[in-house]
Amino acid sequence: MAGNGVVSHERSLRDAVREFVERESVRNAILAVIIFNAITLGISTTQWAKAHLGGALPLIDNLVLTIFVLELGMKFFAYRLSFFRSAWNIFDLAVVTVGLLPATESLSALRALRVIRALRLLSIVPQMRAVVQALFDALPGMGAVIIMLGIVYYVFGVMATIIFGAAFDEWFGTLGRSLYSLFQIMTLESWSMGIVRPVMEEFPYAWAFFVPFIIITAFSVLNLFIGLLVNTMQSAVEAEEQQEFEVLRELVRSETDQVDAHVLELKDEISALRREIAGLRGRTDG
Amino acid sequence: MAGNGVVSHERSLRDAVREFVERESVRNAILAVIIFNAITLGISTTQWAKAHLGGALPLIDNLVLTIFVLELGMKFFAYRLSFFRSAWNIFDLAVVTVGLLPATESLSALRALRVIRALRLLSIVPQMRAVVQALFDALPGMGAVIIMLGIVYYVFGVMATIIFGAAFDEWFGTLGRSLYSLFQIMTLESWSMGIVRPVMEEFPYAWAFFVPFIIITAFSVLNLFIGLLVNTMQSAVEAEEQQEFEVLRELVRSETDQVDAHVLELKDEISALRREIAGLRGRTDG
Amino acid sequence: MAGNGVVSHERSLRDAVREFVERESVRNAILAVIIFNAITLGISTTQWAKAHLGGALPLIDNLVLTIFVLELGMKFFAYRLSFFRSAWNIFDLAVVTVGLLPATESLSALRALRVIRALRLLSIVPQMRAVVQALFDALPGMGAVIIMLGIVYYVFGVMATIIFGAAFDEWFGTLGRSLYSLFQIMTLESWSMGIVRPVMEEFPYAWAFFVPFIIITAFSVLNLFIGLLVNTMQSAVEAEEQQEFEVLRELVRSETDQVDAHVLELKDEISALRREIAGLRGRTDG
Amino acid sequence: MAGNGVVSHERSLRDAVREFVERESVRNAILAVIIFNAITLGISTTQWAKAHLGGALPLIDNLVLTIFVLELGMKFFAYRLSFFRSAWNIFDLAVVTVGLLPATESLSALRALRVIRALRLLSIVPQMRAVVQALFDALPGMGAVIIMLGIVYYVFGVMATIIFGAAFDEWFGTLGRSLYSLFQIMTLESWSMGIVRPVMEEFPYAWAFFVPFIIITAFSVLNLFIGLLVNTMQSAVEAEEQQEFEVLRELVRSETDQVDAHVLELKDEISALRREIAGLRGRTDG
Repeated sequence: MAGNGVVSHERSLRDAVREFVERESVRNAILAVIIFNAITLGISTTQWAKAHLGGALPLIDNLVLTIFVLELGMKFFAYRLSFFRSAWNIFDLAVVTVGLLPATESLSALRALRVIRALRLLSIVPQMRAVVQALFDALPGMGAVIIMLGIVYYVFGVMATIIFGAAFDEWFGTLGRSLYSLFQIMTLESWSMGIVRPVMEEFPYAWAFFVPFIIITAFSVLNLFIGLLVNTMQSAVEAEEQQEFEVLRELVRSETDQVDAHVLELKDEISALRREIAGLRGRTDG
Repeated sequence: MAGNGVVSHERSLRDAVREFVERESVRNAILAVIIFNAITLGISTTQWAKAHLGGALPLIDNLVLTIFVLELGMKFFAYRLSFFRSAWNIFDLAVVTVGLLPATESLSALRALRVIRALRLLSIVPQMRAVVQALFDALPGMGAVIIMLGIVYYVFGVMATIIFGAAFDEWFGTLGRSLYSLFQIMTLESWSMGIVRPVMEEFPYAWAFFVPFIIITAFSVLNLFIGLLVNTMQSAVEAEEQQEFEVLRELVRSETDQVDAHVLELKDEISALRREIAGLRGRTDG
Repeated sequence: MAGNGVVSHERSLRDAVREFVERESVRNAILAVIIFNAITLGISTTQWAKAHLGGALPLIDNLVLTIFVLELGMKFFAYRLSFFRSAWNIFDLAVVTVGLLPATESLSALRALRVIRALRLLSIVPQMRAVVQALFDALPGMGAVIIMLGIVYYVFGVMATIIFGAAFDEWFGTLGRSLYSLFQIMTLESWSMGIVRPVMEEFPYAWAFFVPFIIITAFSVLNLFIGLLVNTMQSAVEAEEQQEFEVLRELVRSETDQVDAHVLELKDEISALRREIAGLRGRTDG
Repeated sequence: MAGNGVVSHERSLRDAVREFVERESVRNAILAVIIFNAITLGISTTQWAKAHLGGALPLIDNLVLTIFVLELGMKFFAYRLSFFRSAWNIFDLAVVTVGLLPATESLSALRALRVIRALRLLSIVPQMRAVVQALFDALPGMGAVIIMLGIVYYVFGVMATIIFGAAFDEWFGTLGRSLYSLFQIMTLESWSMGIVRPVMEEFPYAWAFFVPFIIITAFSVLNLFIGLLVNTMQSAVEAEEQQEFEVLRELVRSETDQVDAHVLELKDEISALRREIAGLRGRTDG
């Protein structure tokens, strides 16, 4: 009985906390904190801030972090394990955790990662969530082309390392360097003047390797794009056509129903006629 | 009575002025002045003009400016405050005002801004207005993706400033420089040979920062474009389908109406029949 | 009588010539000559050809030119002034005329223009004609955006000349140089590392000129492309939908006609019934 | 009789082999071998592998090659000449054959080609086959534009060689070099700062050659892309509309059939009525 009371007490507390963290005003407060923190993080990069706000900014940062930890803690308490069912919660958790890592001078990258917190804007504003969701929804439809592109990319990378690696160590010395250089070539940045012309001085037929690579990847990316576009358009058109089809169906139905109603009235008329004739017949019989 | 007469006199004058500035011939004259001014502004950049037309060009410029000021003054008199209801009028006002600013030698930028006046071509030709309008109409549909891109862009900018700012002051020394450099990288201009390869000599894992940035922004811009395209196409298709649907509705209606008319004739026929049978019955009764 | 004979003789000769130049085999022969000439013009650029075929190639060129002149002469004789009604004929004439211009060593550009003749492939193969036609058909739909782009481009060109002309003579010294540099910037080639960063060393706010220029032109080109795409797709979809609509109309018609036919049979039936009742009535009357 | 037995024995053996190579588990085993080989080929480019796995990797390579040769041999035995009917089999054969070529130190390119084997991933996974098939299916629709682009490209190449070949041997010295340089210009890589500006120092009007080339090729590629997109979209929309049309046809049919059924019932009713009246008539006659 006592245990039961504790459980129900905990449950009602959990409901209260849940109600609190989902409240519109609390959400907006968190949003304000995110924007405020994004601005202070931006300000903290200026010389002026380093000189005058040396002490205040880390303080603000810790305060903001505390608020975020509290918010996530309450959410976790309210939802328990189902907290992890939402990818957005996991995203928030990861983004906040990064800020808890120690940031020494030598690890300025970790300090820099704190600004990722500003991406919480994407997770807290519903419209932003929808846009990010749409981007991720587009991925599966592109899966096969991306894998194909990956295979082609890997094959060209290994080949470039074997053929050009010895002579052009900086660009193709290892598989990693080759993949980076091929990515650069795929984006068409300095591919000819910067990479292929110098390579061609050593390997005159290098163009036979790089030009097909450019054409294949460009054509694949094009198809990726077309596939994405056709998918998006189809679902947009489909929804609309479904609606239009409903209207058309309604139209055909109401029109034929009207004719049908008249036909059925006619039937009643004729039935009445038949009865009358039956009456007439009865009379003549009689 | 007298005051009333003044008001009505002013009103009729206002109507006359309005009629005048909206007249086709006046519009064309203004258009001719704009084109003429655009050409003289172009000519004024040549050495030949500086040598031979040193005195004439500023004169022409002042004349044109006077015409524009008069035109806008008349429009303002004719429409009074509703003058500001049209964004095009505000655009014209801003563009003409720029020409009234003093242009000393040291402020050649202000002198340069005068040529913006040629953009009045966009506001005076209806077809151009439609194109510009279409460009602006496209913006709201792109809002969410642009804001998302802005957030991602800002986060990467702050991070780049913190991580690379000290070592590469010219490119990432301040937030502003970082945002400019990231814009350059987003356009893929010299991103690898010009920026990332030099940075990688200091920070070997810099590619893990820049390659995702390129992929994320490219993918977002792609989605921006696809969204824009699907919107445009949908509204184009919608208008057409609406029209086609009307034709179909008309067809279904006329076809079923024909059948319905025949059914109703049938009903009349049967009614007549019933009356006759009723007569027959009356007779047999009688 | 004699004059008449001459006229009709000339007419029949003209018909014969027309029939000859339009003959499939003659067309194919001309096509073969064009391809052959394209190849010899290609070969003529090699060192080997210059050394060994020094005399033969000009001979071949003159022979080909003679054939083309004869062909066009016959066409002109056959069609007279209506020869100029076809843009393709004018194109052929221009392209062949270029080859008749004297090509001295100092005018190697004129000699180079001879190879334009190979573009006759586009005018003689019907499929190629269709592709080129489609490209030109796309132009009017893009007219307004191209003019808008042109105006924006001109305004930025004049401004760049006034602001940056004095300090960066090579890039923005004249309106022509500015327009070329802005075209380069529009294609995003070395816009930042090559042009804007050096300019920003003199004018720190130059980015406020060039970044908007890039965004405006990119956005306009995007809209150009979208407009083109929507137009193409709409006409493709329209043709198909028209066809489908016809099928649908036929379906609705045949279905309702069937019902209508049954209703009409019913009417006949009832008419017959009425006649019988009338007979019955006559009898009971009698 | 004996020969017959041999034949049927061979046939049953062939069926067994065919059944074996098409078995799901065998396919998966081959797939695993391909992936394993792709990884070992990647590892073989590392310094570590060269130092520690010098002997093992060629062994693995030979083993994999043996497995592939056996697999293809069995397939060839099973399908005999119809083996060559599938383009994928020919692709597999070519890819495996490359690995059988001798790879001396001086022919590192041949050694590099071995990694092409990893492309068998594209031929063995059905989803990948579909993607590659889709890419190839897109080609014919693009045929005419590609040929047109090829002609324009060739003409500009010959012209560039004649005009600029003497002064800029490295870029336009031969037709091959010109075509390569024009490809680079078409991809917009360093076209202005790298090529056209230096050329313009010698030939001030070179822009009149290169700018139109860029615009023509950009416009053609755009049309290529639009054509591809419209084709893809049309076939996607067509399939869907066909289906929707079927539903509509069914709807119209069922609705009119219902009315028709009622009309036919009416006809029966009236027929019955007629019979009754005939009976009535007979009676009054009697």
